Amino acid sequence: MSEVPLYAAVEAGGTKMVCAVGSAGHGSRETVRISTAGPDATVRRMVEFFRAAEERYGALKAIGIASFGPLDLEAASPTYGAITTTPKPGWQGTNLPRLLGEALGIPAGINTDVNAAALAEARAGAAQGCDAVAYVTVGTGIGVGLLSGGRMVHGLGHPEAGHLRLSRHAAHDGFQGICPYHGDCLEGLASGPAISAAWGASLDQVEPGHPAWDVECHYLAHLCATLILTVAPEHIVLGGGVMMQERLFAGIRSKTLDLLAGYAAAWTEDSAVARITPPGCGEPSGLVGAYLIAQAAHRHR
Amino acid sequence: MSEVPLYAAVEAGGTKMVCAVGSAGHGSRETVRISTAGPDATVRRMVEFFRAAEERYGALKAIGIASFGPLDLEAASPTYGAITTTPKPGWQGTNLPRLLGEALGIPAGINTDVNAAALAEARAGAAQGCDAVAYVTVGTGIGVGLLSGGRMVHGLGHPEAGHLRLSRHAAHDGFQGICPYHGDCLEGLASGPAISAAWGASLDQVEPGHPAWDVECHYLAHLCATLILTVAPEHIVLGGGVMMQERLFAGIRSKTLDLLAGYAAAWTEDSAVARITPPGCGEPSGLVGAYLIAQAAHRHR
Repeated sequence: MSEVPLYAAVEAGGTKMVCAVGSAGHGSRETVRISTAGPDATVRRMVEFFRAAEERYGALKAIGIASFGPLDLEAASPTYGAITTTPKPGWQGTNLPRLLGEALGIPAGINTDVNAAALAEARAGAAQGCDAVAYVTVGTGIGVGLLSGGRMVHGLGHPEAGHLRLSRHAAHDGFQGICPYHGDCLEGLASGPAISAAWGASLDQVEPGHPAWDVECHYLAHLCATLILTVAPEHIVLGGGVMMQERLFAGIRSKTLDLLAGYAAAWTEDSAVARITPPGCGEPSGLVGAYLIAQAAHRHR
Repeated sequence: MSEVPLYAAVEAGGTKMVCAVGSAGHGSRETVRISTAGPDATVRRMVEFFRAAEERYGALKAIGIASFGPLDLEAASPTYGAITTTPKPGWQGTNLPRLLGEALGIPAGINTDVNAAALAEARAGAAQGCDAVAYVTVGTGIGVGLLSGGRMVHGLGHPEAGHLRLSRHAAHDGFQGICPYHGDCLEGLASGPAISAAWGASLDQVEPGHPAWDVECHYLAHLCATLILTVAPEHIVLGGGVMMQERLFAGIRSKTLDLLAGYAAAWTEDSAVARITPPGCGEPSGLVGAYLIAQAAHRHR
């Protein structure tokens, strides 16, 4: 069997749990997707996968979880690691690191999927060597993870910057937004489903020259400028389904610089090309982040 | 003489340098205000004060500086500690910790005035025991300092959230804002001079029932919500001249909760009263922060 330490990684999402064994440095030996049903059945299937993987590949040293949230990340809390107020039926209060760690008898760690992705991009992706990194995913929702001083950011809760209220784009007047909490927060205006709702077309029907994309770049540039002026990231990684359209990056970069108007002097045309980029991990950033969380749980066991 | 370790503290501002000797725990033994002239003359007068203070009170262990910016805070930079792109004549490139530390022969540290104030509020003020804290000053400008994981936030630069672009208040339509960089950024719309410019009256002429204050609370609530959704502070301290009007706090708290709309579940009416407050240090937060920076410089010498 391999001499390389083997970890368990989970990217926990509302529709599926991506489970894998391997490491951040050497990649996954095996990956499985388990549909997210109720917590009991889902955890049971995950444990079965990891036990079977241990028989095939050897002992797992620890498990890391990159999860949908919100999560309780306060170290001193009795419910540390639990999912808190999710509307997902049955999952409120579910403590994945406790359940999986105890069932497998190994140390466990957890953070938000996007915080984990920011960590992964800093250690093994597009932002290598940076210790101040933002990871933004733009897909069915908008999520933001932050690394500051090399640490995944949390305090009273954790970053939820998908729900920022930003200046409306003029071409978007009259669109109410689709966030069930806020209507026209960033996610309500600029997620994939929001684009479809605003323009009455599925995403792949909205052509490259459509004004929708200028509006989209406006909001994502406002997000980038907001992150730069608050946590001063060295690198902003933009991933997720909507960002598969790489032509959006040029518009986002130039509008971000327009908003800064020379204020954050390190942000220039050249540096924006280097510092606002797609993800750069070999596997999904959240999964790589889960391996890194597992490594940390093993070190601190 | 006292057995308590004695430190030098500087709150470096564009119009004056507040210099003091003492400690965060025991307060200042002596404080002096030196007008900010050119860097050479100003530094010479500061050194004279600290040398004379050493004769009176005993040796200073280290010096901490809480400074106007922007500052180079990148540890590996050859110009670490220098003021970077200030429009203040003669001050660009001035490295206060190097100049003062070498002249006095003691370790020196520096951070932004508002980051230092956030640290001070966390250790000795209104946010004691917290390690995720935002400090906002609303006066002739708007500055924001952040503590995350107990560390003053910096990355590529440091927080400059006074220059965020936020949703305009309807009653403010037509006002261009006064920020020389951005026009209608937060500072351009909501600093003391911006309030005066928007309503054509000096601040003390704008009566408590005037719509200006509802507009002001709107912008500061947008700032609070933005900070909560990005860095998840446990406590937000609002200081500075404009915030001397304590009645503004109620409006800011309730508008912040409206903007969150239940999303950050830990923010409730009660917790907002406890978590959005005036400063609580016995001396100005920036000066107390400078002592704490001096202590850290002494520990890490």
